[in-house]
Amino acid sequence: MSNLTQIALDDVRALSIKILKNVGYGDDHARAIAEMLYTCQLDDCQSHGLFRLLMCVQTMRDGKISGHAKPALKDSDTAVLHVDARDGMSLLAVDIAMPKLIEKTKANGIAALAVNKCFHFSALWPEVERLSAAGLAAIAMVPSHSWVAPAGGKRGSLGTNPIAFSWPRHDKNPFTFDFATSGFARGEIELYKRAGKQLPDGVALDKQGNPTTDPQAALDGAMLPFGSYKGSALSIMVELLAGPLIDDMISLESMEYAAGQAGAPYHGQIIIAFDPAHFNGGKPVENNERAERLFADIIEQGARLPSQRRFEARARNLERGFVEIPTVLYDDLHALLN
Amino acid sequence: MSNLTQIALDDVRALSIKILKNVGYGDDHARAIAEMLYTCQLDDCQSHGLFRLLMCVQTMRDGKISGHAKPALKDSDTAVLHVDARDGMSLLAVDIAMPKLIEKTKANGIAALAVNKCFHFSALWPEVERLSAAGLAAIAMVPSHSWVAPAGGKRGSLGTNPIAFSWPRHDKNPFTFDFATSGFARGEIELYKRAGKQLPDGVALDKQGNPTTDPQAALDGAMLPFGSYKGSALSIMVELLAGPLIDDMISLESMEYAAGQAGAPYHGQIIIAFDPAHFNGGKPVENNERAERLFADIIEQGARLPSQRRFEARARNLERGFVEIPTVLYDDLHALLN
Repeated sequence: MSNLTQIALDDVRALSIKILKNVGYGDDHARAIAEMLYTCQLDDCQSHGLFRLLMCVQTMRDGKISGHAKPALKDSDTAVLHVDARDGMSLLAVDIAMPKLIEKTKANGIAALAVNKCFHFSALWPEVERLSAAGLAAIAMVPSHSWVAPAGGKRGSLGTNPIAFSWPRHDKNPFTFDFATSGFARGEIELYKRAGKQLPDGVALDKQGNPTTDPQAALDGAMLPFGSYKGSALSIMVELLAGPLIDDMISLESMEYAAGQAGAPYHGQIIIAFDPAHFNGGKPVENNERAERLFADIIEQGARLPSQRRFEARARNLERGFVEIPTVLYDDLHALLN
Repeated sequence: MSNLTQIALDDVRALSIKILKNVGYGDDHARAIAEMLYTCQLDDCQSHGLFRLLMCVQTMRDGKISGHAKPALKDSDTAVLHVDARDGMSLLAVDIAMPKLIEKTKANGIAALAVNKCFHFSALWPEVERLSAAGLAAIAMVPSHSWVAPAGGKRGSLGTNPIAFSWPRHDKNPFTFDFATSGFARGEIELYKRAGKQLPDGVALDKQGNPTTDPQAALDGAMLPFGSYKGSALSIMVELLAGPLIDDMISLESMEYAAGQAGAPYHGQIIIAFDPAHFNGGKPVENNERAERLFADIIEQGARLPSQRRFEARARNLERGFVEIPTVLYDDLHALLN
C-alpha cells in the first residue's frame, strides 16, 4: 500500500527516543517510553504504537509532566507494593517496580502494585505480558478521562477504563487480552477521525446525550460502555480499584486536572499478579493441560483467542525486520525531529 | 398478583432447612445453604432464591454430593488460603474460610481464597458482600458447565462464568455487581422456559450453532457471551483463574463429570479480597469521597447503580416481613416436604 511507510525495527526505538528527548524527556523516561512504543508497533498495534508519540509530545507541551521524575518505590512487608511516579510518565515507574512485584508475588502467591501520580498513555498488555513471561498470571487496570457515559446515562462519568489479563503458556505466546470497557477505545475513535470514517452504531453519544456515529461528535460527547449494564459495572470496578482504592484520581478528577489539555491523562494504575505455584497444589503440568484443552476447544470450532493477530504480526515483523506505519503519521513524526 | 405466594421471612429458612435435611443434607450444610437462599430471596433475587432448592434436591439425588462433608481449611504463611469442600456444597466451605480470608486480607493487603472440589449453585454477591461488610473490596469468580460458546464459535466451551464485585460504602449499601459473562444467566433461561417466554435475540445458539430465541433450544445448544469478543475474553479469564490456576476443573470437565445429571456443577471458586487500608495511603475519608462522587455523578444523570433494585427489595421485604415467590414454585417446594 502506497500510504504506508516502512521503518526498520531498530529505527522505531531510535526515532522515538530522539523525538522524546527533543521535547524534554530525560534519558530514562525516553528509553522506557520508546520500549513501550516499540513493543506495540512490533505487534502492529497502531493505536498504541508510534502514533502515541504525538500524545507524548503533547503531554510534555502541556507543561505538567516531569520528564526527569525519579519514581519512588515504597515497599512493605505485605503483599502490596507502591510506586510513586512523581508526575512522570507511568512506564519508568512500572519498570522500576516490576522486579519487586514479581518477587512479592512469588513470595505471597498474590500481590498488587499501585502506581500513583503518573501520566498514562500506553497499552496494558505489554505490562501483563512481562508478568506472564515470568510465569505469573496478571490483571492490570487504569482509569482515564470521564469520556464514557454509564449504561442508561447521558454524559461522561467513567474512563475508557481498560482491563488487561495475561496467562502464561508453556512454550507458547501467552493468553492475553487488553480491552477498553468502552465500546471503542479512545485511540480507535481518533484513528476513525484521522481516516475520515464513521463509527458503528451504539458506541457513542453526542453532547446532548443522543446516539451518534460521527467521531468528532463522539469525542465532544460521550462514549458508551461495551456490553451495556455489565460492561458499565465492570468499568466502575476498574475506576474504583485503580482510583479510590489506591489513593488516586477517578476519571472525573483526571479530566478536571487536565483542564482541556490534550495530553496523556494523569491518574493511577493497579496491577494484580498471581503465582500459580501457590495455587495449583503442586500440579503445574495437569493444570497447564487443562488450560490448553480450553484454548484448543475454542480454536477447533473456528473462534480465535484474543491477541492472535498481534502475535502473528510480531512474528512477521521480526522476520522481515521492519514495521509499517501510515505515511501521514511518518511525516508528522519527522516534523517533530526539527 | 394471584400467581404469587407469600412466605414469612422466618419460614424461608425453616422451609429450606426442612427440605434440605429431608433429602440428605446434614445440619451444617442445610443451614449454610438455607442462609444463602434466604439472603437471595430477601432481595427478590428469584433466580437464586428458593427456586434453587430444586437444584439442591436434584444435586443430592444425582448421588455425587456429600451432605455431610467437613470442609478442610488449608492455611499458609502467604496471602493464599485454600479450602477443600470435599465434595460438599460450596457454601459451608466458604463459611468456614471467610473469617480467615478477612484476617489474611487485613494482614497482607490483598489475599485470595481458593475453594476446591465443591458443588456450586449460588449467587456470588452474598459472598463478596460479606467481605465489603468487613470493609474490604472483593471479587469472586466461578466456572460452571460448558454451556457458552466463545465469541465467533459454534458450541459450548465456556461456563456462564459469573464475576461479582463489592465495594464497601460508609453507612450505605455497598456498590455490588454479580453478572454472568454469558448474555443471560443459565437460571434466567430456565425462568424464561418456566414462564413460556421467548429469549431476546443474540443470547443463544441452537445445537447446530445457529441463533435461537427458544429457551429449550438454547438449553440444548449454546449460550453466547455478553459483549461479544470482550465478554468472551473476560469469561476465559474467569475460567482460568477459577479453574487451572487453583487446580480445579474447567467448565468442559465439570460438564463431563456431571454426565448429563441436572444438579449443581462441580468445580472450584476463587475469591480475591483487597483491604483499602493497605492501599489508600492513610486517606480513607478522601478516597471514600472520591468513590461517592463517582456514584453520585452516575445517579444524577438518571443511570442506576447495579444492585439498587435488590437493595430496594431487601428494604421492602424486611419492612413487610415476607417474600413472594411464584405459586407454582411454592407448590413444587411443598411437594418436597412429604
